Amino acid sequence: MSISETEESPLYQRLAVTLAEAIHCGTYPPGSRLPAIRRCASHHQVSVNTVLTAYRILEDRGLIEARPQSGYYVRSVLPSVKAVSRLHPTVHSPGSDKLALIETVFAAQNHPDYTNISLACPQNSDFYPTAKISRIISSLLRREPMLIGRYALPPGSQRLRREIARRALDLGMSLTAEEITLTHGCMEALQLALRAVTTPGDCVGVETPTYFYLFPLLASLGLSVLEIPTDPQQGLSLDALELVLQEKRIQALVAMPTAQNPMGCTMTLPDKKRLAKMVNHYQVPLIEDGLYCELQFNWPLSPAVKAFDSDGWIIHCTSFTKTIAPDFHLGWMAGGRFHEKLARLKSVSSLAESRLLSETLGHFLESGGYDHHLRNLRRRYAAQMDEARGMIARHFPAGTRATQPSGGFVFWVELPGRLDCVALFHRLLQEKICLTPGALYTLSERGNSAMRLSCCYPFDDRYSWALKRTGALACEMSGIAAGSE
Amino acid sequence: MSISETEESPLYQRLAVTLAEAIHCGTYPPGSRLPAIRRCASHHQVSVNTVLTAYRILEDRGLIEARPQSGYYVRSVLPSVKAVSRLHPTVHSPGSDKLALIETVFAAQNHPDYTNISLACPQNSDFYPTAKISRIISSLLRREPMLIGRYALPPGSQRLRREIARRALDLGMSLTAEEITLTHGCMEALQLALRAVTTPGDCVGVETPTYFYLFPLLASLGLSVLEIPTDPQQGLSLDALELVLQEKRIQALVAMPTAQNPMGCTMTLPDKKRLAKMVNHYQVPLIEDGLYCELQFNWPLSPAVKAFDSDGWIIHCTSFTKTIAPDFHLGWMAGGRFHEKLARLKSVSSLAESRLLSETLGHFLESGGYDHHLRNLRRRYAAQMDEARGMIARHFPAGTRATQPSGGFVFWVELPGRLDCVALFHRLLQEKICLTPGALYTLSERGNSAMRLSCCYPFDDRYSWALKRTGALACEMSGIAAGSE
Repeated sequence: MSISETEESPLYQRLAVTLAEAIHCGTYPPGSRLPAIRRCASHHQVSVNTVLTAYRILEDRGLIEARPQSGYYVRSVLPSVKAVSRLHPTVHSPGSDKLALIETVFAAQNHPDYTNISLACPQNSDFYPTAKISRIISSLLRREPMLIGRYALPPGSQRLRREIARRALDLGMSLTAEEITLTHGCMEALQLALRAVTTPGDCVGVETPTYFYLFPLLASLGLSVLEIPTDPQQGLSLDALELVLQEKRIQALVAMPTAQNPMGCTMTLPDKKRLAKMVNHYQVPLIEDGLYCELQFNWPLSPAVKAFDSDGWIIHCTSFTKTIAPDFHLGWMAGGRFHEKLARLKSVSSLAESRLLSETLGHFLESGGYDHHLRNLRRRYAAQMDEARGMIARHFPAGTRATQPSGGFVFWVELPGRLDCVALFHRLLQEKICLTPGALYTLSERGNSAMRLSCCYPFDDRYSWALKRTGALACEMSGIAAGSE
Repeated sequence: MSISETEESPLYQRLAVTLAEAIHCGTYPPGSRLPAIRRCASHHQVSVNTVLTAYRILEDRGLIEARPQSGYYVRSVLPSVKAVSRLHPTVHSPGSDKLALIETVFAAQNHPDYTNISLACPQNSDFYPTAKISRIISSLLRREPMLIGRYALPPGSQRLRREIARRALDLGMSLTAEEITLTHGCMEALQLALRAVTTPGDCVGVETPTYFYLFPLLASLGLSVLEIPTDPQQGLSLDALELVLQEKRIQALVAMPTAQNPMGCTMTLPDKKRLAKMVNHYQVPLIEDGLYCELQFNWPLSPAVKAFDSDGWIIHCTSFTKTIAPDFHLGWMAGGRFHEKLARLKSVSSLAESRLLSETLGHFLESGGYDHHLRNLRRRYAAQMDEARGMIARHFPAGTRATQPSGGFVFWVELPGRLDCVALFHRLLQEKICLTPGALYTLSERGNSAMRLSCCYPFDDRYSWALKRTGALACEMSGIAAGSE
């Protein structure tokens, strides 16, 4: 097959299209290896550079992935989740029933006998630079034994804040150490941001589905919630959002435009720019949850929406809990025009972060090992995600749909046949398998037949047994046979 | 001199009275050493045990103190601060001007060139078991390398909560590990407790003067504040409180009945019982700040008010920040009838505490070294407090009054001549000395001529120079000569 340059589009783009078609029609099935670069170049009579560029485009689209020292492989493909069209969202007052369900989930997570397939709680130090972190702690304790005996005050470790600012450039954010407020994880950052920009009785816009803890958090602050239609691949519907902003129906917006939890989707660059412009225009604060920004599978990283914040209406919240040290619960926020208010609120709410932990992270980031670690982590999570999606395609009821995440380690699965996933959750608990039912992530009925799955666990026999068992039970309960069995 | 047993009172009590009189009339001046036990016994013709008991009574009253391997010494005495009688307190809406002042104080505290004499922020690891804590951390990292890579979930370290429950018995509180919620320091405990029991617009009763961060905290939650008359030695006026409760003027009360910040006073046992009974009777939640409970100078410890909580209306909040590891900011609360609500609020507000830090404290408490450490810490702070009060008596303007704390490391100083302590604060800042003006601790005018001082710093040349310099400047500004010069 030969591909010749035409006026319509460059050579590499046409090659990419050809290959994508070959993937879609099954010439290269999921999991198979693409031809080596040189072979492909000679086969299509193009240069090695053209092939490399084409492969990179396919990689960007999530169709293939590079595996080090091995080549390019086709990623497993599941039907995507369809967006739900709801142009007239309704306001809910989130209750505390979800919280009881979450607590059941946490209790199972804390119990060593249970196998978890859903929580975004890394449980394995293999994935994290624990040895290096341990060495830094020990060395800090030797060099600065006073550290433990000194009261930590705001604003906290200058070293860590400087490193955060330096690294934020990778996500397009130009920040100084002084603009950063350290927090007790991303959860506290979200909590403080909400308290800073709302008053009880206000309404807050969220994606649907969204991070499950947002609902009880909003309820605890006396805030009501408006779910804004969200596409499983494109993210937040900006048209729907604009309508809501025009009608002044929300006083703040919480969104995760990059590697969204629970769907894993990332908004396109133009959409991110439009979102930033919109919240600045309407002067409605956007609380951007950037928890998985650094765990995007593709490089260069898609920038944070905060990168396009013209007048400071965006508060970027994130943490190192998913990237370096899950145990530390160390997060930060860049508050734009709300910075001073947020710093003060942090200070009167929980004062300051441990210098021992902050300096440890600061030294780790300074040491330069972070990029290497992140590359490994991304590769690992991407590969595990792929394996999990492959297993779902084989073992879950035919017609099961799943999102194709662009980063992080969670994805969203919708089951066919109106299967009640809360019932499935309770059945699985009896077998000591713990998942998080979709009902936790949305107030709409859409979540009833859905679940979030997570690939932050080592993909061992126990995990794959639990996935298979979940699939088998879902087949049994829905009366639908497994996908490709 | 001979003391013979009479019918009125036992021998040791009469000896104690005799000695107290000798102290008050100057036979034993502040700082002087009392006769050795045997010499005293032979001099007064009583048994060694009688002398020991009498000395213990004097110690309980705060008149003398035991110094290890050295004997008993008379504590320095300053005129006490007079209670301010305000039976009809007024409601204030605390502004944020105090916060700006506090931030100036923190900035100076963070700056190595400044000498601090006021903040309750331990700066010296000599006072804290840093070496032992370091060893525990290192050993934990060796034995459980996974710890850093595991996501910490609520309710957090069972070991730490069990040890907390065990130790709470010393303060009369009978708790189980399940009744304890770990928090990010005492500050977060107070914040969560306030959020759990109030709604914006409510009014909260506080002592006057009180912990300075309470004002901006209450303001951030949309709460107004009612200052309730507080005696510098007896604490909260329960008669005034009862009036306020009868009139339903407050929806919650925050108080520090033991080693109060900033005055150092502890309520009597009958008063503590009456307070517990009162809040349970009127069903108004008491948020008991127990931060310095374990740093009481006398043994056995005066119990927490929570010890007498009949129906669960008392939330006890505290932390290990002043006792073991100032850097960790690890605290806890026992929420009584609000426990479940508080645990959930903690969970949605900042999720959980680091297991590395919690387990470290748990192991430290288990190891049994805590009591020994606490005894040293109490002795050290008591001795430093005494020295500081002695210096104030010598170097501050004649007529200066200071409280005689029963624990902790802060005390309250009122200057004569309507001296403006905020002006003094700013003058001292120019000389790189940092204190906290009394205006921070109360909304009433009473604070204008007052300051809090702290003895948590090592009593070195720099600290004593700063105290003397503060005194000299106060003399200059007030035009009143120093006390005993």
